Amino acid sequence: MRQIFVVFFAAGGIFIALASMALAMGKVDKRPRSPIYGVTLPEGYRQWEFIAPAQEAPPLDELRVVVGNVTAMKAYRDGKLPFPDGTVLVKLAWKRAPSSEFAPASVPGAATTVQVMVKDSRRYAATGGWGFGRFINGKSADEAQHRTCYGCHLGNVKDHDLVFTRYAR
Amino acid sequence: MRQIFVVFFAAGGIFIALASMALAMGKVDKRPRSPIYGVTLPEGYRQWEFIAPAQEAPPLDELRVVVGNVTAMKAYRDGKLPFPDGTVLVKLAWKRAPSSEFAPASVPGAATTVQVMVKDSRRYAATGGWGFGRFINGKSADEAQHRTCYGCHLGNVKDHDLVFTRYAR
Repeated sequence: MRQIFVVFFAAGGIFIALASMALAMGKVDKRPRSPIYGVTLPEGYRQWEFIAPAQEAPPLDELRVVVGNVTAMKAYRDGKLPFPDGTVLVKLAWKRAPSSEFAPASVPGAATTVQVMVKDSRRYAATGGWGFGRFINGKSADEAQHRTCYGCHLGNVKDHDLVFTRYAR
Repeated sequence: MRQIFVVFFAAGGIFIALASMALAMGKVDKRPRSPIYGVTLPEGYRQWEFIAPAQEAPPLDELRVVVGNVTAMKAYRDGKLPFPDGTVLVKLAWKRAPSSEFAPASVPGAATTVQVMVKDSRRYAATGGWGFGRFINGKSADEAQHRTCYGCHLGNVKDHDLVFTRYAR
């Protein structure tokens, strides 16, 4: 009888310990992660310095701004390639909407996607050192969408460390 | 003869004093100033947080990004109108250029104008509290161009404290 109690309490203790660890890990980072890469939306990216705007033709018909963290901006300013580990780039996109106040202008309409590139040459060695994330309304897009990232970047901007955006001066 | 020397040295002293003052003032701020308003390109604006991108149809055919200083961004985030004194907004503009690397995209080409709005409700009381500056290659545009700023802003965005740009979320 006493042995049964010992086993019972020991099992209970292990369960509580594991549950606490899971909870603690969950508290550390509950943010949505992209499939394949596990990339998250970085904290505070809306306040980051912009690298350049862009426009995407119909059917997407979007206005975009790409921003970078401090590591990214230093690399851009120094003209340094490849980008160092810790570089994070974020592209914010909106539907292009005609301005109701000034006829020749288009302005951001509804937000569409937020796309993230994270440089970690070890973790993402199989994809040129870059991890990719595509988010819609704060949630990650599906795996099929993430399968297209690396191939398109590799096919078009291999000579610029897989990064399309240049610093707009 | 002695009187002549006294007058000569006195005049020389005054000249040197005035020249030194002019030099000192020049050292304090030699930046180009817009006509009418005396607005300058603010230090470090390229690193400021962006408010929104915009696109301008042909013939200008431009991509633009509007950035704001800390006072501006706080007002935007708080949804505060009118903007407080000390608000500075800067619009950077580039010719829209087709991307050579990704067909549906347009990216910044040559830089065109940098346009500045400075809120100072006393100094610019006659123009809704705003001073305007338009710069091309770091030099101010002419007075005729600056005569058009206030009327266009007043005619189109009177209800948004003469500011076109909204914060893109």
